[in-house]
Amino acid sequence: MGSIRYSHKVLESLCVDAFEKFGFSKEEAEQITDVLILADLYNVRSHGTQRIARYHKSIENGAVKVGAKPEIVFETPVSAVIDGHSGMGQLVSVFAMKKAIEKAKKSGVGIISVRNSNHYGIAGYYAKMACDEGLIGMSATNSESICVHTNSKEALLGSNPIAFAFPAEPYPFWFDAATTVVPRGKLEVYGKEDKPLADGWATDENGDVCTDAEHVLKCISDENSCGGILPVGGKKEETGSHKGYGYSMICEIMCSILSLGNTSNHLVREKGHGTETCHSFVAVNPEIFGDANAIKEHLSVFLQELRDAKRADENVPIYTHGEKELRGLKKYLEEGIDVNINTVSEMINMCNYLGIDSTKYLGEVDISNAKQSSYEKEYK
Amino acid sequence: MGSIRYSHKVLESLCVDAFEKFGFSKEEAEQITDVLILADLYNVRSHGTQRIARYHKSIENGAVKVGAKPEIVFETPVSAVIDGHSGMGQLVSVFAMKKAIEKAKKSGVGIISVRNSNHYGIAGYYAKMACDEGLIGMSATNSESICVHTNSKEALLGSNPIAFAFPAEPYPFWFDAATTVVPRGKLEVYGKEDKPLADGWATDENGDVCTDAEHVLKCISDENSCGGILPVGGKKEETGSHKGYGYSMICEIMCSILSLGNTSNHLVREKGHGTETCHSFVAVNPEIFGDANAIKEHLSVFLQELRDAKRADENVPIYTHGEKELRGLKKYLEEGIDVNINTVSEMINMCNYLGIDSTKYLGEVDISNAKQSSYEKEYK
Repeated sequence: MGSIRYSHKVLESLCVDAFEKFGFSKEEAEQITDVLILADLYNVRSHGTQRIARYHKSIENGAVKVGAKPEIVFETPVSAVIDGHSGMGQLVSVFAMKKAIEKAKKSGVGIISVRNSNHYGIAGYYAKMACDEGLIGMSATNSESICVHTNSKEALLGSNPIAFAFPAEPYPFWFDAATTVVPRGKLEVYGKEDKPLADGWATDENGDVCTDAEHVLKCISDENSCGGILPVGGKKEETGSHKGYGYSMICEIMCSILSLGNTSNHLVREKGHGTETCHSFVAVNPEIFGDANAIKEHLSVFLQELRDAKRADENVPIYTHGEKELRGLKKYLEEGIDVNINTVSEMINMCNYLGIDSTKYLGEVDISNAKQSSYEKEYK
Repeated sequence: MGSIRYSHKVLESLCVDAFEKFGFSKEEAEQITDVLILADLYNVRSHGTQRIARYHKSIENGAVKVGAKPEIVFETPVSAVIDGHSGMGQLVSVFAMKKAIEKAKKSGVGIISVRNSNHYGIAGYYAKMACDEGLIGMSATNSESICVHTNSKEALLGSNPIAFAFPAEPYPFWFDAATTVVPRGKLEVYGKEDKPLADGWATDENGDVCTDAEHVLKCISDENSCGGILPVGGKKEETGSHKGYGYSMICEIMCSILSLGNTSNHLVREKGHGTETCHSFVAVNPEIFGDANAIKEHLSVFLQELRDAKRADENVPIYTHGEKELRGLKKYLEEGIDVNINTVSEMINMCNYLGIDSTKYLGEVDISNAKQSSYEKEYK
């Protein structure tokens, strides 16, 4: 199973050009691309350019409406409900988080709940937007139902990630995690690489633990089949299954319940129809608690104490959240990003579809060993 | 290992009388008791009347200042920072959540961060206060450091529970869970009952998994020793350890960072000194997102769908959060509450200390087989 290394600049220009060809404005194309490339650079590969085939498919089959503009349907000084009108998730979401930031700066707090959107990339991108402005940022999204809640063999919840960012030195606290043990994207990566899943990540159609990524993905894709990914905390209450299930519910409430949008189990999988994904965005100004600099300093000291703790395994560092991602950023900006050969193949297919010369970005690549993804099969 | 069944009314009057004897007003004594009894009735026994010996000790040694009044030290229309002045955690917290509710009703949102308080009982009590008024309620607290974060063998984080409640029919969504796999109180219950811990709940001083409750509790109590309880998600990142660690951090940020209070690793264990525990309380009015009744109905439908899902184990029901607790409430109100003989012994000791006739509440009890808790040993 091979991969090819490309500089982020190359992937960036490929994505921007492709999204423009799909009909987005240059500014919109750059915005969408920025979310994808940050995921790659943060080493959250499951949510980076490897998703390009899914976005291609979503735009092609009309799930994503290229010209849609998000609309504020309800608003107070501290809140808003936004209808995404089936636009590209990243564009709806940048609009929504900007609104949350604006409210936090004026009123101290901004809580936005969004309905009728589409897949938005990494949740942490939006939390980071607030954090970059000195605010506390939070974001969450529901998703196609993939998660089997405690003792259910039917997947009714999404991967439902929650991201939280808070300014600190030398780098912010940046947490972004699916409330499932792993996100669906990780199963896609494991599937592409033919790696077995860890025990306790997923169950099959009978509710039994299953380590075959492709099988679980098939279970998830088939609306009539049971099976899916387990919540963080695993299969049993004894290991905290109900806790992951609870965090997933908090996500669902903030996203689909407050916006009166579709819960994960009612997201749409119909061709030509938006998925109706729901998100939420929260920004809080730390100044509403007093001295924002003192608060930032207080967190910075605590994070350092956590990193300096005595280690269970002396050879492994103790990380605080966001540290690994920033190390990734430095490394991949310098060294480039390894793109799986199957993803390269998907990119070439997309270029062919759009009438773009893929060799301009990716060079001459032998993709005869590439594995066909389920998305490719559908649009061939 | 025996237990004795008492009606909640008996336990209630014992607690109210005891707290009055300790110097609290009748209203305050009733308030504190209400938090403890709800925990027992919700079957969160670890946080109910079995804690009485710890509260006794805290008041006796001066950690809890009986006459203290919470003080608002910073305030905006949507937020406040409160100094608990080492008062009883339950009293500080009811004051703080009332403030959050008031702000949510006026401004849509109320976020309160509290420093210099003490143990406050179950987090969910305060989330429920908001929910009972038709609001979204959230509460969190830090605690003595008991949690070994990912790859740390040193416990620097508390059990750091997060509670979240949201109105729904036929009963609200009510989630309350430590961000550790289990709370410390559960270890105390297992210790009292001589039951081995489940694998992956805790580590010893070397960072290795340990199933001996008393040993782990000893590790936690000894400030110079390593060892503690694992975050939800367990020991490894593969099973989501960094996720539980992340949720614990969100709790810490809302409680100790925003209030400029003590983080869990700096809570005070000194005789005569308040623990300086920190809490947070959030109330949000669903009306800032539109039609609150429609939102409540939307959640109610989704909760029913979750309960109706196909089961992995046909013989076990699928619960939504708060359902088990309400079943407990009904059952224990009718049948009474089984109190472990060791807890009964601690209650009798407390009564003797206060000059209260314990037989008036508990009857004549043979406690010769009761195990001495570490708390009793200290005040004998």
